[in-house]
Amino acid sequence: MTIPSPSYSVTLRVMAPTGPRTTTNIVTAVGATGAAVTGIDVVGSTAQGMVIDVSADAMDNAHVERITAAIDEVDGASVEKVSDATFLAHLGGKLEVTPKAKLRHREDLSRIYTPGVARVCQAIAADPENDRRLTIKRNTVAVVTDGTAVLGLGDIGPAAAMPVMEGKAALFKRFGGVDAWPVCLDTKDPDEIVRVVKAIAPTYGGINLEDISAPRCFEIERRLRAELDIPVFHDDQHGTAIVTLAALVNALRVVDKRIEDVRIVVSGVGAAGHAVINLLQAQGAKHIVAYGRSGPLRGDQHYDDPHRADLARTTNAERISGTLREGLAGADVFIGVSSSNILDGEDIATMAPNSIVFAMANPDPEVDPIVAAQHAAVVATGRSDYPNQINNVLAFPGLFRGLLDAGARRITDGTMRAAALALAGVVKSEELNPNFIVPSIFDPEVAEVVAESVAQEVRRDPGGAQEVHPLTHIQAV
Amino acid sequence: MTIPSPSYSVTLRVMAPTGPRTTTNIVTAVGATGAAVTGIDVVGSTAQGMVIDVSADAMDNAHVERITAAIDEVDGASVEKVSDATFLAHLGGKLEVTPKAKLRHREDLSRIYTPGVARVCQAIAADPENDRRLTIKRNTVAVVTDGTAVLGLGDIGPAAAMPVMEGKAALFKRFGGVDAWPVCLDTKDPDEIVRVVKAIAPTYGGINLEDISAPRCFEIERRLRAELDIPVFHDDQHGTAIVTLAALVNALRVVDKRIEDVRIVVSGVGAAGHAVINLLQAQGAKHIVAYGRSGPLRGDQHYDDPHRADLARTTNAERISGTLREGLAGADVFIGVSSSNILDGEDIATMAPNSIVFAMANPDPEVDPIVAAQHAAVVATGRSDYPNQINNVLAFPGLFRGLLDAGARRITDGTMRAAALALAGVVKSEELNPNFIVPSIFDPEVAEVVAESVAQEVRRDPGGAQEVHPLTHIQAV
Repeated sequence: MTIPSPSYSVTLRVMAPTGPRTTTNIVTAVGATGAAVTGIDVVGSTAQGMVIDVSADAMDNAHVERITAAIDEVDGASVEKVSDATFLAHLGGKLEVTPKAKLRHREDLSRIYTPGVARVCQAIAADPENDRRLTIKRNTVAVVTDGTAVLGLGDIGPAAAMPVMEGKAALFKRFGGVDAWPVCLDTKDPDEIVRVVKAIAPTYGGINLEDISAPRCFEIERRLRAELDIPVFHDDQHGTAIVTLAALVNALRVVDKRIEDVRIVVSGVGAAGHAVINLLQAQGAKHIVAYGRSGPLRGDQHYDDPHRADLARTTNAERISGTLREGLAGADVFIGVSSSNILDGEDIATMAPNSIVFAMANPDPEVDPIVAAQHAAVVATGRSDYPNQINNVLAFPGLFRGLLDAGARRITDGTMRAAALALAGVVKSEELNPNFIVPSIFDPEVAEVVAESVAQEVRRDPGGAQEVHPLTHIQAV
Repeated sequence: MTIPSPSYSVTLRVMAPTGPRTTTNIVTAVGATGAAVTGIDVVGSTAQGMVIDVSADAMDNAHVERITAAIDEVDGASVEKVSDATFLAHLGGKLEVTPKAKLRHREDLSRIYTPGVARVCQAIAADPENDRRLTIKRNTVAVVTDGTAVLGLGDIGPAAAMPVMEGKAALFKRFGGVDAWPVCLDTKDPDEIVRVVKAIAPTYGGINLEDISAPRCFEIERRLRAELDIPVFHDDQHGTAIVTLAALVNALRVVDKRIEDVRIVVSGVGAAGHAVINLLQAQGAKHIVAYGRSGPLRGDQHYDDPHRADLARTTNAERISGTLREGLAGADVFIGVSSSNILDGEDIATMAPNSIVFAMANPDPEVDPIVAAQHAAVVATGRSDYPNQINNVLAFPGLFRGLLDAGARRITDGTMRAAALALAGVVKSEELNPNFIVPSIFDPEVAEVVAESVAQEVRRDPGGAQEVHPLTHIQAV
């Protein structure tokens, strides 16, 4: 399923002889390799020849080499340099720290820094809750990772994780107006991670854990939630759960079934699977069977891992056994957060009429979505090149926007359900159809509606939320 | 010496009757309290009266109350609200995290984030030194504090320290183009601080320690320097030392004396005093006597504190004893990093002809600078309302700019001397005079010249500096 992608767009600088057929020959040669040519610019021309920048979307490294070779075979042409648009976009990093105020002259300095800043410090020392009025804590989230489970790349370490965390911070600002900062930790010890995050917490209004491997992520999140008074959220778990619930709510609207009634098969009992099942249950799902690598979890089995034991207790009331394929027969919903290409069309065909398939394994889904769509009523994946992308960016910016606005001190199932239902509600009844169960990530309403709904839920069930005053004029102290 | 200050500028909203003399009466009343009226704006006018915003620089809280009372005594006038420009400047915090690239559509996302980002992560995992090319590490500094010695306010804790660290980060960007981020630690344990800073280090190209109390700051800096491969710099120590050396070099040019020859008396053997003495010695100073609260440090005395023992060994070769006042007789240079108002004009009069006095205690100097100037040839302080302000902002932005540009892994005496001499050199011979021994902090040449000189020194004595490539096109990997 590899196709040329803008995430692999390259520009090749080519020296070539002047002549009427030169560019045509080059474009033809590049196109013949399967690349999508996106631009051709003659950037210089002399008696010796032309300098031509050829831009194209490629598939992978080997493909770029084939493109280079194809150009080199054009008579008189040679590739001088290959630039890669993705690397260019990351050059020098993707974030800046920008002062909100200009520092033009000494008066500005004397307010922003010494001596004026001393009074602001004293106001916080006198009343610690002033920190949400007078510092960036009001709007900051730490994006914390130890680099142990980065994308599908595994344990690549904190330095190599930076590009992802910077990207995440960029999305936080772009979609939620949240000032997020990468915290890439040079330790894998859960005790140490908990200690470090607690120590740096005064700067932040929330903690987003990211790409930390299971089962360590469970313990780290649980302890931080217990010991910090700001919301702590592991996006790989709960972000996925929120968007999955939103998508399922809308898919069930499409097929006119109720979450209480449907039989749900979940493949994958790691971090994401665990959180998805918990949130679906909080929303009323009753008939869930969860499959790990060795079959369905069952309450009459023993599991060393407390998270599996927990799932085994709350799912599979009928204590069915057998394979995932067998369990799929007659099921209304399949949710995959496991591995690629473990099911085929025949498996989907055994599901109940009007079945729903969310195949979210990366980079390739549990079942080919085009094949699945021949048998299921609604199909969703984690990929951007199919309809109904289950993408966490639909949740985390608005969720944290709402948490920060309401001064939340914790995250509850209630807040996460509020986020999911608000997200589902962005798709209007007249828009809803099997290919449109989640809104576009570029729909500006998404973060706004999610934030408002989350903030309302925090205010309804504050659990010690700190009231955040609007930023208006201040009385002199 | 309290005078109205723009760091205490307030705006009072006043309701007053319409009438030809109203505003004049109000301005007169405010001026009579000793405030500097900076603006008067009639923001509304009805039959009932006028709404007038009166802006003024005040001295302190009590003064604002006197201003309010004075306006309330004007016939028919009453103060409705007092806004404080300093607090307004801090409202909501002073920093933003801004993505460098716009995220306009899915192609942008696929480069900045998944799936494109995976290749960038892999390039760093394959060659860790790529982190300075492909992440913000190239340009980031952590501003680390535990809130134990904030300005003159003492141990006010990490939350109350935030406004200072945010301000410092704003100065880093404004003057050095450095992306600095506040790291305010909820721990005072040196072991824990060292552990935490090491753990978060992958995100940063340098560490600026700030407002950490002595003697803990010495140990924390020493251990972090030993254990990290990025520069670690305690600004309260070395920033002060760099600007002091720069100012002394120029003051000696004014009086035509050599650093090797002059007798230098230092008052204060804390963090700043220790660093100042070390750097002056590295520059060639030979005759230094350092006074603590109980007299001059002497090599024949025992000190439990290893930093005092260290100073005692390298200073006061003649092993003089007695008081600071006695020691000052015949000295060429006085450097105060101790406490306010411990000397008077008669003490300064006992110094050698053409003496130099740097009285840097905050908020009030060791000796009134106006009185000192009657006896000394050159006088400098830490205050912005006298000539020759010894201000760390002259050093740290350019210093870190140069360290980051050169990919420095450490800070040496050589780098700090290079920074000081470059800073001194910004004052041209024709500009140099007793009232102009350091340049203006707003002189754009300062950071540029300091950075260039620091980067050169790092390249001359790299000590494992990581070469930072210019940000040009990249070959596809």
